Amino acid sequence: MKKPQRISGVLSPVVTPFRKDLAPDAARFVRHCKWLLANGCSGLAVFGTNSEANSMSVAEKLELLEALVAGGVPAAALMPGTGHCALSDSVAMTKRAVELGCGGVLMLPPFYYKGVSDEGLYRNFAEVIERVADDRLRLYLYHIPPVSQVPITLALIERLLKKYSGIVAGAKDSSGDWSNTKAMLDAFATDGFDVFAGSEVFLLDNMRHGGKGCITATGNVNPGPIDKVYRNWQAANADELQAGITATRKIVQKVPMIPALKAIIAHFGNDPQWRTVRPPLVELERAQEEGLIAELRAAGFGMPGLAA
Amino acid sequence: MKKPQRISGVLSPVVTPFRKDLAPDAARFVRHCKWLLANGCSGLAVFGTNSEANSMSVAEKLELLEALVAGGVPAAALMPGTGHCALSDSVAMTKRAVELGCGGVLMLPPFYYKGVSDEGLYRNFAEVIERVADDRLRLYLYHIPPVSQVPITLALIERLLKKYSGIVAGAKDSSGDWSNTKAMLDAFATDGFDVFAGSEVFLLDNMRHGGKGCITATGNVNPGPIDKVYRNWQAANADELQAGITATRKIVQKVPMIPALKAIIAHFGNDPQWRTVRPPLVELERAQEEGLIAELRAAGFGMPGLAA
Repeated sequence: MKKPQRISGVLSPVVTPFRKDLAPDAARFVRHCKWLLANGCSGLAVFGTNSEANSMSVAEKLELLEALVAGGVPAAALMPGTGHCALSDSVAMTKRAVELGCGGVLMLPPFYYKGVSDEGLYRNFAEVIERVADDRLRLYLYHIPPVSQVPITLALIERLLKKYSGIVAGAKDSSGDWSNTKAMLDAFATDGFDVFAGSEVFLLDNMRHGGKGCITATGNVNPGPIDKVYRNWQAANADELQAGITATRKIVQKVPMIPALKAIIAHFGNDPQWRTVRPPLVELERAQEEGLIAELRAAGFGMPGLAA
Repeated sequence: MKKPQRISGVLSPVVTPFRKDLAPDAARFVRHCKWLLANGCSGLAVFGTNSEANSMSVAEKLELLEALVAGGVPAAALMPGTGHCALSDSVAMTKRAVELGCGGVLMLPPFYYKGVSDEGLYRNFAEVIERVADDRLRLYLYHIPPVSQVPITLALIERLLKKYSGIVAGAKDSSGDWSNTKAMLDAFATDGFDVFAGSEVFLLDNMRHGGKGCITATGNVNPGPIDKVYRNWQAANADELQAGITATRKIVQKVPMIPALKAIIAHFGNDPQWRTVRPPLVELERAQEEGLIAELRAAGFGMPGLAA
């Protein structure tokens, strides 16, 4: 049997729409996921940091995941976040993701305790893999120390790869530190370990050093131009294309990222309900949003076909 | 109707026993809770940091909570941790705790996102209170910035007390910073806001400034002597009693706290299964445990009646 192809390219950690009562809104979610796949994303890292994944229960997330698959989003393009503080939650969600045929899962380390050992983190990932016990599992490690405060070290990756080669399929590096991404690439990229930059700012660098793409917040709103860098990284104008997406990113990240993404979708999709976030996040202030939109418009930014 | 009495005194954040397969062990849990109540604890802050609460799913915790009540542990003495990253989880668990008659709940802020605003945290706690919608709720705020990285500020407490006086009943301060505990006491102790020190090291100071006791890791193993300080804080020998429990604490915290508590219970209760922790934690190394036990024995430490 031919091995299924690994996910590569531009993935969006899809923002999660909430209704007025803060319940997840499956219909809007499916719609946005389809727009993303039609406009540059080759994969969807649903339930990431930008998805407010940890602000939802496992049951709420599984319901959304089932809705995506039932709604016609190809499971092979999905890389849901399934890492939780609780081993039991990580196992339950990973198992269901694999059953549904998801192309991979993006796994946070347990993030409540700080200063834990690589041994403890190894045991966490190993327990999940052993309990899911399914050769179809493709596990991507999620390194995001600015938020999780619990890093995925190179030594941990090495140990996991040694035991679970083929299952441990790669990582998303959201450290914001290119030297760390570079070290991951240098150490493991030739071993079938697929490294995704955690921001499109590092997309071209990542491709030039053997990476497989990026999983980036702004993939939610700017997937086309980011995908263009991915597809043309060897082209003569690659640096110019990269400069364009970096400039857009810099506009967006002047304000808090998650409410900013939601405000952009609300604005360009003409759908105010998208502005809703769950606590502890808060939506942008009106002036922040107006400034953001004005600056994006001035830069020629758009979201073609988003408005119904 | 007379208002039920508030919990005060020494509370233990009860360590959670796991079986070989890492499943929570309800029978051992009930047994240890009963030993604690019979040996100095006036309340049980089950599902705290030292309980590996966040390493368990909501379903696993609710099953343990039901087992405690069914097993004859008085619900009025229980202050389960019910704060999660996900609003939906916090609501579900808090609701069930109130239905079961728990004396209070100890609530972590959502702890995945860092640098969140007081406005966002206020909305989180307010949503939980509004959704639980039960006057019997007694909510204790859990300030533990070294682990959660998300502080509960005095301004947040003030705002919550203004709107939810009587429901917002107090706090556990695990900052390790007495000046913060003192500031909480000075600002709110006379308003029916019950402050518990997060370590017995501060118990006497807390009592002398209007606090209500402590919720402390080592309450799991040393409840009698800690309770003695609580009951005798106005006695002439209070400082001497305090020095004794501080000395014991200092022995225990030379090694990682949670596996240390479990090793002590395993040793003095002659029950090796107690050593098991869930990832990402790891048990003590043999030399660490032997050193710890030797030092405790030399200091005259014991756990009367623990061994079956």
